[in-house]
Amino acid sequence: MGVSKLDRSEAEQRLAKLDDWEFSRDGDAIKREFKFDDFVAAWGFMSRVAILAEKQDHHPEWSNVYNTVEIELTTHDADGLSERDFTLAGDIDALR
Amino acid sequence: MGVSKLDRSEAEQRLAKLDDWEFSRDGDAIKREFKFDDFVAAWGFMSRVAILAEKQDHHPEWSNVYNTVEIELTTHDADGLSERDFTLAGDIDALR
Repeated sequence: MGVSKLDRSEAEQRLAKLDDWEFSRDGDAIKREFKFDDFVAAWGFMSRVAILAEKQDHHPEWSNVYNTVEIELTTHDADGLSERDFTLAGDIDALR
Repeated sequence: MGVSKLDRSEAEQRLAKLDDWEFSRDGDAIKREFKFDDFVAAWGFMSRVAILAEKQDHHPEWSNVYNTVEIELTTHDADGLSERDFTLAGDIDALR
């Protein structure tokens, strides 16, 4: 299944519609850090993201340290950012 | 609550009893990578680790990329490795 890479101006337009995400990896990924009250709250959020990701068959590269979750999204099949990253990012933002 | 830092020889003895963990951060942490068939399997494992961690009130610094989970353990209150890290690591190994 082909997934096309967004060019920089398309990616910038999509990024502008999201909350607090920024480019990473020279513009080939986007990332955002989320803070919670404690580990259980962070974990609850991660569980919801995990289900979204599995449903969309598009998985984050992410890390957790106690109450902090950092999520980075990129599309390996596109060698950069695709529509899928922005769809998932928007859905993650909507969870909060 | 005081948690004492293990000295290097104690830490080495404890490490030798674990499966496939190695020192990181100049011996102030231990880490291990776990591989699974897919994201759902990795996530199931992480969910079990999350519950262990919360019960032990000792939380990992960890990351996940699709079927891979990397876990790093250290004890901030001890500025290095404590008994808690090796207890949690042993319990994580026992999950597999």
